[in-house]
Order: sequence, then C-alpha cells, then structure tokens
Amino acid sequence: MTMRPITETLLYDDAMRVVMDAAKPTARTERVSLVNADGRVVSADVTAPMDVPPFDRAAMDGYAVIAADTFGAGTHAPKTLTRVDRVFTGQVPTRPVAAGQCIEIATGAPMPNGADAVVMVEETERTDDAVRVMTPVYPRQSVGRRGADIAAGQVVAAAGTTLNPARVGAIAATGVADVGVYAKPSVAILSTGNEIAEPGQPLAPGQIYDINRFTLETIVRRHGGVSVALPIAADTVDELSAAIDTAIGHDIIVFSGGSSVGERDLILDVLYKRGVVHFHGIAVKPGKPTVFGAIDGTPVFGMPGYPTSCLSNAYMLLVPFLRKVARLPEWSPRTVDAPLARRIVSTTGRHQFYTVRLVDGVAELAFKASGDITSMANADGYIEIPAQTDVVEAGTMVTVKLF
Amino acid sequence: MTMRPITETLLYDDAMRVVMDAAKPTARTERVSLVNADGRVVSADVTAPMDVPPFDRAAMDGYAVIAADTFGAGTHAPKTLTRVDRVFTGQVPTRPVAAGQCIEIATGAPMPNGADAVVMVEETERTDDAVRVMTPVYPRQSVGRRGADIAAGQVVAAAGTTLNPARVGAIAATGVADVGVYAKPSVAILSTGNEIAEPGQPLAPGQIYDINRFTLETIVRRHGGVSVALPIAADTVDELSAAIDTAIGHDIIVFSGGSSVGERDLILDVLYKRGVVHFHGIAVKPGKPTVFGAIDGTPVFGMPGYPTSCLSNAYMLLVPFLRKVARLPEWSPRTVDAPLARRIVSTTGRHQFYTVRLVDGVAELAFKASGDITSMANADGYIEIPAQTDVVEAGTMVTVKLF
Repeated sequence: MTMRPITETLLYDDAMRVVMDAAKPTARTERVSLVNADGRVVSADVTAPMDVPPFDRAAMDGYAVIAADTFGAGTHAPKTLTRVDRVFTGQVPTRPVAAGQCIEIATGAPMPNGADAVVMVEETERTDDAVRVMTPVYPRQSVGRRGADIAAGQVVAAAGTTLNPARVGAIAATGVADVGVYAKPSVAILSTGNEIAEPGQPLAPGQIYDINRFTLETIVRRHGGVSVALPIAADTVDELSAAIDTAIGHDIIVFSGGSSVGERDLILDVLYKRGVVHFHGIAVKPGKPTVFGAIDGTPVFGMPGYPTSCLSNAYMLLVPFLRKVARLPEWSPRTVDAPLARRIVSTTGRHQFYTVRLVDGVAELAFKASGDITSMANADGYIEIPAQTDVVEAGTMVTVKLF
Repeated sequence: MTMRPITETLLYDDAMRVVMDAAKPTARTERVSLVNADGRVVSADVTAPMDVPPFDRAAMDGYAVIAADTFGAGTHAPKTLTRVDRVFTGQVPTRPVAAGQCIEIATGAPMPNGADAVVMVEETERTDDAVRVMTPVYPRQSVGRRGADIAAGQVVAAAGTTLNPARVGAIAATGVADVGVYAKPSVAILSTGNEIAEPGQPLAPGQIYDINRFTLETIVRRHGGVSVALPIAADTVDELSAAIDTAIGHDIIVFSGGSSVGERDLILDVLYKRGVVHFHGIAVKPGKPTVFGAIDGTPVFGMPGYPTSCLSNAYMLLVPFLRKVARLPEWSPRTVDAPLARRIVSTTGRHQFYTVRLVDGVAELAFKASGDITSMANADGYIEIPAQTDVVEAGTMVTVKLF
C-alpha cells in the first residue's frame, strides 16, 4: 500500500449533485404525541374528524339576539329586550330566544336556538332583566360559525408539512392527540484515529481530544437526525471493519479522520473493499479530502479529520443530504449582509468556505487553519466563494450565513 | 361581581417595557454533557486547561525536516535527505532529526526533536530511504504549533455565550466533557375554562378541544424553556387557586383563557386577590385582553383564550420575555421581504399582528378570525403594523417574520 495523493477532485457543484442524488427521503414513520411533534414532518394527511368549532358560538361576551330585533337601535333610541337566561362557556343553552328576548352569553358559549347574532356587552345597558341595546347588529354578527375554523374532512396538516406551533395547535383543535410523522434518520458517527481520545479521559502522549464527534452530533441533531456516536476506532482494518458492522443498520454513517492521503488511509480502503466510493476529493477549501460512498446501500461520508474541514463540509454537504433524507425543507440559515473587511484572494480553483466575525457591521475573516476549531468557534458565520471567483475586494457586500 | 370591560389599554411598546422590566435573567445553573449542550447558555467562562494542540504537529503528510536542509531545492535540483524513521499519528517520535535526515510523518503526528518544518509528500520522491525534496520549505512550514488553536488558560466559551456546534467542539478540544450552563426557565402552562377538553378525550356538548396548551408548550420549548402543562382548570375560584398553588415554584406561569371581560373572568380576580396586576389589556390586535402580573414574585401571563390571540401574543410578548429570562439572545426570526397582495386599512389604534401566506413571492393575508387557529396554521409568518399606521397600500414591501 502506498500513499495516494488526491489527484482528481470533483467540483463542489458536482459533488453536491452526487450527494443529493444519493439522498433517499426516508419512508419510515412513527407516531408522536402532539407536544413532541414540533419540527417533525407529517407522514400522512391529518384530516379533521369533526368541525371546529363543533357548534355556532358567541364570538363576544354579550347577548344572543335575533338580529332583526336590533334594527334601528341607536344610542338615543335603544331597543329593549328581555333577558330570559344566561349561558356560560362550556354550557349548553337550555332555552331558545324568541322575538323581543335575549340570552346573556359568554364568548365561546354555544348559540341558543333562535338567536342569530350577538350584541357585545359594551353596546348594552342592563337593568334587572331589561337589556337596552344601543346598536343594531346584522345576522351572524359576532357569531363564530360551526366549522368556520376547520371543517370536518378538511386536511389540517398535509403529508410533507413540517409542524410548527400553530400547526400543532390546529391538530389539537380537531381532538387528535398524536400524529404520524417521518422517523428521524439515524446517523452513526465515528471518529477514527489512534491519536483521538475521549474528552474527560486522560490524554496519552501524541494524542488529542475528539472534536468531530461533538460537532457532528450537534449538527445532526439540529437538522432532524438522531445521532449515535460509536466508540472511537483505532487505525486498524479490524477495528474499522468491526465499527462498520455496528454502524450498518443506521440510515447514514459519518466517519471523520483518515480520509486524507496518508498511508494509513483505512476508511478509503475499507470502503473500496466493502462498498463503493462515489468520490474521493472535492475542490473545496477547507475539506478537500472528503470521501462519499456506500456500504450495503447505506450512505457513508468520510469527513476530513481536521475539525474545521470536518464541520465546514458538514454544513456544505451533510446538512443538505440529511435534511433531504429527513424530508425537511432545504436549510435556509439566517443571514446578514455585510461589507467585507479586507480583500480576499482565492486563486485555488476551489470553492471556499470562509468563516467571518461580524464586528461593527463589518465581516472580518475569522479563519485560522483547518486544524483549528477556533476558526469556527470564534466566528459568527461563514461566506462561500465559488471556485471561479479569484478576488473579492474589500468593501464588497457579502451574505454571511449565521451559525 | 359585574362584567369588566377593558376600558384602558396599554400601548404595545409600553406593555413590552413592563414585561421586559419584569424579566429577570435566571441565576440557576446546571452542568450538562457536551452532546447535550447545543443551544445552551454558558454560565461561567470555560477556560482551557491545556494547550490545543498539546504539541507541535505535522500539518501535512510528508517528511519532518530541518528547513535549512531544503533551501535551494528545486524540481531540477532536489535535495536528498535520509529517511531515518517514521511516525504515525497518535505515536510519539522515538528519535530526533539531525542535519541531512528526515522522518516520514503523518498529518497530526508530533514533530520529532530537531525538525522544524514538514515537506509535503507531493513535493518529494522516495527511493528506499533516500528522499528527494523538490522544493524548499521555510522554518515552521506545515507545522501546527502547540497551543496555536487554543492556549492553556484561554477562555474557550465566555459566560453568556450561546453554544453552537463549533463552540461545543472547541470545549471538547480542551478535554472538558461537560459544561456549566444556565438552567432553562420552567414554564407552567395552564388552560382554563369549563369548555376546554383534552385532545384524545371525548367532547361533551358545548366543549372544544384545548389548543393553547399545545401552541404554548411548543413555543416555550423552541425558545429555551421547559414547559410543564398542568391539568385543565375549570372556572371556579377553588380550582384556579389550587392550580396556582401547583404552579408556584415554576419560573413563569402562563394561563390561557378567562382574561376577557366576562363575569367569570376568574384569572384576573385570582391575580388581584393573590398577587399584583401589572396591566390588563393591551392595544394590540388580536390579543387585547391580555393580563400580566405576578404572584409571590412569579411572573404570570394571562393569555386570551382565543388560540390565535394567545399565540400571537406569545410571539410578541412571551418569547422576548422568556428569552431574556433564559439569557438567550433576542429572537431574530428568519424574514422574507415581499410586496403586500392587497391594501390593509388598520384604523384601530392598535398594534396589529397580521398572518400572511407567501404565494409566488407575494404576501397574502391569511388572517381569518382570532378564534381560528387556522389563521396561523395556514400562514407562513406574520407582519406587524404599528398602532400609528392606518393604511398600508397594496404592493408595499413588508418584512414577513417566518414561523
């Protein structure tokens, strides 16, 4: 086995196409209770089993009346009606309203038979059971009609919809307590390398602490996946193969480390041996030594070991992939437009990911080195510069995607 | 007890000031493991206990050399060095590099004593142990210096920082496995009303299903709170008082329902009796009958029962309040600028919350009635129109805050 420099790299757009073509939206579904449904993707149309509201109801506190009885009413010429009952919210009216009568009614209470409008309390004066109405109301005024919010049989949340607070509320309105959603893709995360130690454990000479497991787990969870971290694997074919056996069964496998050009580039070897390699090397900076392939039909990302390369490629490749598998809408991060603090010369022929800090509204470059996690941890977001752009002058407005 | 129409309403800006003044950033802290730390707010500076990386290391696969040995090298005049050892990542070099020598080194491996630069493998040719170097390197070239990413004693995440994937990674880099964060505010959520039934349970005549509990729980969780739903309380002083006894101990209490003008407006009564009322009624639409006060020092929101009023006020008042208590940065929702589909006449003197749907890039009004949750569930976001603005013409560009 000899060192294998990356000689052919795929353009970023081409790599994206390969990755997105390989992303198969999940078919697995599950039921979740409504309180846990926010952010989930509905797997089958949720249809209302009933009208909402289930009855005509008062939309105001006041008096249920026959609208015609109020015609011609005014401040100086009130119409006087006889209050014959009252109905609170949650109760059912026990008698109807006849001509010349009214029933005191609370917002949300079912309308009594006979009544077709509500006069709001502010437009009335009451003495014992005589109610003076100061304004006319038209039929249906201040009445919430049965089914006006949601009609029985109506689709409340269509398949493919991502739930949010209001949509969860609309499902609750129909009395449905749980909802069918697509299962979150399960993502096995595996840091490889003899030098990698678990935070909280002692560090042997030559070792460094695992970073990628944490950045990857966090980003996977942010974008609709369930992250499952496997134990750190050493650089031997046996350990890597055993780790893959454990990882098979998850929807996506993400390795980090070992996809550079070294002699001990085992992930690539294992992938060639046990599966297929779609590409090895992308014309991006940082993050060039990225591998994408599959084992037994399970997509496998081999991320660079360098933490900033690993995480920037997670933003650029893994997030769109994962969201498509999860059936979430494309990620649209919050952005800020800001002038660039200084000129960027980017003659690498690679699609570049630059982290920036926003200082007094100006985008300052925050990038140190791809091995330095602080290149990203001390940044507010990033900009991308396409491969064909060589120079971006200071002062150019750039769109910063916020982390 | 008589009906109490809301006669004086507070301007929205004034209500916001009252609410924000009452928001006391939490002082409670807890420790969480790094994998669960995303989105949390750091409670005390996290300081690096060590240098990252903890040693000088190779930044490329190649050969560790004495830079001076390569000076003058070129494609047609290579310098030949003797390969005396190799060091893999995770190993410790066992011998130094002397003049005329080099050690094969993998990215991330500790630099051998004596060597001060790395020649990348692509710039070399090797025959047995003779390595021909085709290019000169300067001292420190392709060497990651000890502490270059993070120096021991440096603050990796300052108190008050909200963690994100990269910042979690930076903490991991220093070997720290958990982090002190502010506790999430605990929010007791209580739907009141004789008419309110729990989804999944049968509906008695005159009843409707609880919506507000679900919209409020969802929005509280989205904005850094822990939601605790209490059982639905009927409209009796005893039940409400008992519910408050249960709710005391949480950081925030949010009632919905019963804060309108009806005779049975018990939340207000209980609040007057057991605590203080800061305001009752805001010049917003929808959502005017909103109460804000405190019981035994615990802030209490009395939200309107109508689901759209309740949720729009949650967006406008509760979210900023909760985020301040949670010490999260102000919410900045994703926004879209779009022309308004039709003229809005808003002469109410109230700050208005209009839900909109984005259709072919145009903002169409989605609002039906404040009792209709579909006013929000079928919308993409909302716009706000200040009280002093009466008319917004069709075609005016508006900023839609996305749900």
